[in-house]
This record gives sequence, C-alpha cells and structure tokens, in this order.
Amino acid sequence: MTKIDVFAHVLPVNFYNRMQKFDNNLLAKNPYLHNDVLTNIEKIKAGLASDVKQVISNVNLNPEDYVDDKTSVELCRHANEELISMVKDNDIFVSAVAMLPMNSVSEAIKIINEQVVRNDELIGVQLFTRALNKPITSDEYEPIFAKLNELNIPIWLHPVFDESRNDNNITFSWEYELTQAMYNIVKKGYFQKYPDLKVIVHHAGAMIPFFSQRIKYTMSETEYKDFKKFYVDTALLGNSKALELTVDFFGASHVLFGTDAPFGIPPYGATDEIVSAIDKMNISADQKNMIYTNNLKNILK
Amino acid sequence: MTKIDVFAHVLPVNFYNRMQKFDNNLLAKNPYLHNDVLTNIEKIKAGLASDVKQVISNVNLNPEDYVDDKTSVELCRHANEELISMVKDNDIFVSAVAMLPMNSVSEAIKIINEQVVRNDELIGVQLFTRALNKPITSDEYEPIFAKLNELNIPIWLHPVFDESRNDNNITFSWEYELTQAMYNIVKKGYFQKYPDLKVIVHHAGAMIPFFSQRIKYTMSETEYKDFKKFYVDTALLGNSKALELTVDFFGASHVLFGTDAPFGIPPYGATDEIVSAIDKMNISADQKNMIYTNNLKNILK
Repeated sequence: MTKIDVFAHVLPVNFYNRMQKFDNNLLAKNPYLHNDVLTNIEKIKAGLASDVKQVISNVNLNPEDYVDDKTSVELCRHANEELISMVKDNDIFVSAVAMLPMNSVSEAIKIINEQVVRNDELIGVQLFTRALNKPITSDEYEPIFAKLNELNIPIWLHPVFDESRNDNNITFSWEYELTQAMYNIVKKGYFQKYPDLKVIVHHAGAMIPFFSQRIKYTMSETEYKDFKKFYVDTALLGNSKALELTVDFFGASHVLFGTDAPFGIPPYGATDEIVSAIDKMNISADQKNMIYTNNLKNILK
Repeated sequence: MTKIDVFAHVLPVNFYNRMQKFDNNLLAKNPYLHNDVLTNIEKIKAGLASDVKQVISNVNLNPEDYVDDKTSVELCRHANEELISMVKDNDIFVSAVAMLPMNSVSEAIKIINEQVVRNDELIGVQLFTRALNKPITSDEYEPIFAKLNELNIPIWLHPVFDESRNDNNITFSWEYELTQAMYNIVKKGYFQKYPDLKVIVHHAGAMIPFFSQRIKYTMSETEYKDFKKFYVDTALLGNSKALELTVDFFGASHVLFGTDAPFGIPPYGATDEIVSAIDKMNISADQKNMIYTNNLKNILK
C-alpha cells in the first residue's frame, strides 16, 4: 500500500528565483532554504522509499513578508501553478497545497475560489500560525476560515516564530506557536462556528496530547472536545510512544502520516525514521493503513 | 507503602498574613490564593488518602515581587521556619522545600548554608522559571546553582508566566516556560559545570518527552544527554500514556510522584487521579515503588 506523506516541503524553483530578486538577504534570513533537496526533484526521489509519495507544500517562505499585496498575489498564483505542474509531471507527488497571499484576504479568497476549487492537484491551503506577525486567528483573517469551511477545503497548519519574542529556538518554540494557534482556534469557537472546518496540524498536534488532561480541567467541555477535531501529522522524527499518545487523544482517524521532509534528519529528512516509528506503534494494521493512506482520502471526500 | 507526593503546595498562614499587608491587591493579582485548602491543614488531611504524604512547598507567591531585599530575606526566613514547624507538627508532611529571596542572591545563599543545611525538615529549595521576570538562568542567579551543586541540595523547579508576554494562558504557557528554563539550563552547560546539580521539574518535564527526538536532531549529543539528567514529577492530572512516555525518556529512576495539590481538580487537587494513572501505567511494580517513594530517598542520599 502506498504511504502518503501529507506534510512534505518543496521550494518551487521559479518562485524561489523571483523571491531572491526582492531581497538580497533571503538566504541569510532563512538559512533552511540552503537545503538543496527542496528544489531538486531528483534528490527528493533519491531519498524516498518506493512506497512513499508526497503531498507537497511550499517551504516557510511567504511573499507577504517581502512584497506588496499586488506582487504577493501574483507570486502566489504563479507558485500555485508551478506546484500544480510539479504534481502533474512527477508521480512521486500525489497533490499539492496552495499558497495564499496573506496581505490581501480578498485575493486569497479568490485564489481559493479559482485555483484551489478548479484544480484537482490542489487539495488544500497552507496557513501559518502567524501572518505578518499577527496570530492567524486575528479577525482580519477569519473570512479565509469561513470560506474554507464553506467549500470543505482543509487547512495545513504550519508553525512560524513570533518575531516579537527574543527567546525563540527551533527545538521548542515552533511547537508552542502551533499550540497557541490551536488554542486560539478553539477559544474563538471556530469549530462551533465553522463545523466543516478541517485543520491538519504539523508535529502531531504539538503540546495537545501530552497536556490533554490539563485542557480537560482548565477549559470547558466543548473546548476539550473541539481540540479533538484537529487532524495532526506524525512529524516527530520518530518516537513511537509519543505517536501512540497522539492516537490516544485524537483517535486513529485524525492522525496522518506526515514527515516534514526534507527537514529534520539530513540529507533527505526523517521519512524512514517516521515510517519505522509508525510500524513499531502498538496499534492495529487497519489503524496504520488509516494513518498512511485512508484518512487523507476521507478528509478529501 | 507510603506514597510521597513531592510537589504539594501550601501557603503558610503567618507568611500569607504578612504578605497581605504589603499589597492590598494580593488576592486580585493571584486568584489561586483563594483556594482555602492551601492554608487549612485539616482540609489537606481531609483530601488525602491514608497512604499519601506530602513534601510541601510554598505556593507561587514570592516576596521579591513585592518588597525590598531586606524585607524579602526576613519574610523568607520566617516562612521557612513556619514550613519547618508545619512538618514537625503534622505527620502528613514528610518534608518541606525552602523559599529563597531572589532579590538578594548573597542572602539566598546564606539561607541555603544556614536554614537548609541545618534543618532536616528542609530537603531542597524551590526556584521558579523566572525571578523578577528574568530567566532563572540569568548570570546573577548562577551562584545559587553553584552552591546547591556544591552542597548536593536539589532544586524544585516551578513555572511562572513571562509577564512581558500578552498571550499567556494557564493551559499551556506554564509548560512552555518550564521547557524554556530546562532548555536554558542545558544550553548554559549547567549539568557539565555542576555535575551534582539535581533539578526536579514540575509537570512531568513539560515538552521534553513528547519532543525528545526533536532535541536529538536539533541539539548536540551532550545536550540531549543532559536533558535526561532532570528529575520530573507526575503532575499531569492523569494521562497514563503520557506518564509512560515520561518514563521512557527520563527513566523510571528520574520520575517522582508529584501532584500539584491542592490545584488542578477541585476541591483538593488531582492526587487520586494521578495515583490512579500511575497504577494503570504499563511498568513494573518495582518501577512504581521507585516513583512513589524510593527515587526521592535516592536523590537525598
């Protein structure tokens, strides 16, 4: 059975080339862009077991942080076209996740209505925990959640640092940012207001599984139940027991194979380690198939 | 066999009465002080199973946040005497953890050398993740770590909010603050510099067990190993699987029964739920005895 990695990153080459023209320090500001697997499909293939295919999303490089709204809209539309072509041209990629220009919510919604709805290759959109360093749950971004709920299009939720903080570190701070975004989504009642909202959270739902009883006793019953509505991936770089805890909280139907490739373990990412960790989990073969393949199909129904 | 809860809080009555004189808004600023179990030993007894005894530490109310150094030193010394009396007078309390005035490091060290060393009732000191809203690993506090290492006296590490942040919440932010303090202790090389340092971390080591592979692949091998040197409690309000993950990372010899009583589950705390969660853990009876009793004895040797 094919394993579908729902959280694998690429950097579309044309998009990257254009972005470099807008900022001479792009590489210095974003050292992870140095990873040449991101832009080299032959290398991605070289690092991938024959039974793994990927859903690709752009790496953490967002036009709205560098350019005005007109330019970012145009960059996102072109990048989405490039992602579509990458899926069409390479059978290791089963689908892609669209980019949205977060400095123009109205144009972001047009991209959803047009590019995402009309192209089978685009199965969702990627949102980051903050946009323009404001929480993704800021009121100005809410129309995007409303539209995605209306059209039953899932969100891929990826962390970014809160740049106003001076103690960020790559080991833990992203996980806290994911957690805080989930907290805000629940606290703002989005799952009550938007009952078809589907959010796939990176890194196994961050702090939620380990602190689930803390949620239970410090928040309302509705809020506790709303946390269980998130979907999460398996990108913990291994750790079968942590993944079991993840399944224990979210249920096997809400956990999807996802690796964060090509990041985590050089040179190609942690795909093999994560497959090995899932294989070792003390869950049924059916549940493993759900995680590897079937849950994504169900989400997209 | 007696179960020793290493992380139970009290609010010594005389100390509390004196603190109230320094700030009229003490209760408004610290709503958790409203919990009358904190000051009422009969109520603590009423909420405790016959086989559980407690190591008591002062609730999160620190003189240095309210008064000058001379007054805070005097308040801490008196509060420590009061804690000693509480242990002597009540057989449900097996020991206590001393308070330190963090606006006078030299006097804090005198308290360690005098009160802690000379009184068997005081088995360690409580430090908070920040003092005067600076990280506990700030250089000015390092002499305290050095002294505790020299005397082989353990630290009880308790979280506080970073008051410079505007998005703190009780469900997750304390856990992040604990994690960041542990990160800083490791990053500053305290376990290398102070090889006898013993730190007992609240809330099962916060984000460490779930993200242990992230530590492994984003930090050095020495740093990864240093994270395993922390001791942690079981204060997760239940969650056997999370506790198993905790034992998996830190080892059964580094996990100690601790509940955060009387907080977590009204009215008396989560003691019964945590005992039930430990009893359900898939570990050996010997390991459970280590967690309930023996590990603390070994730390104090």
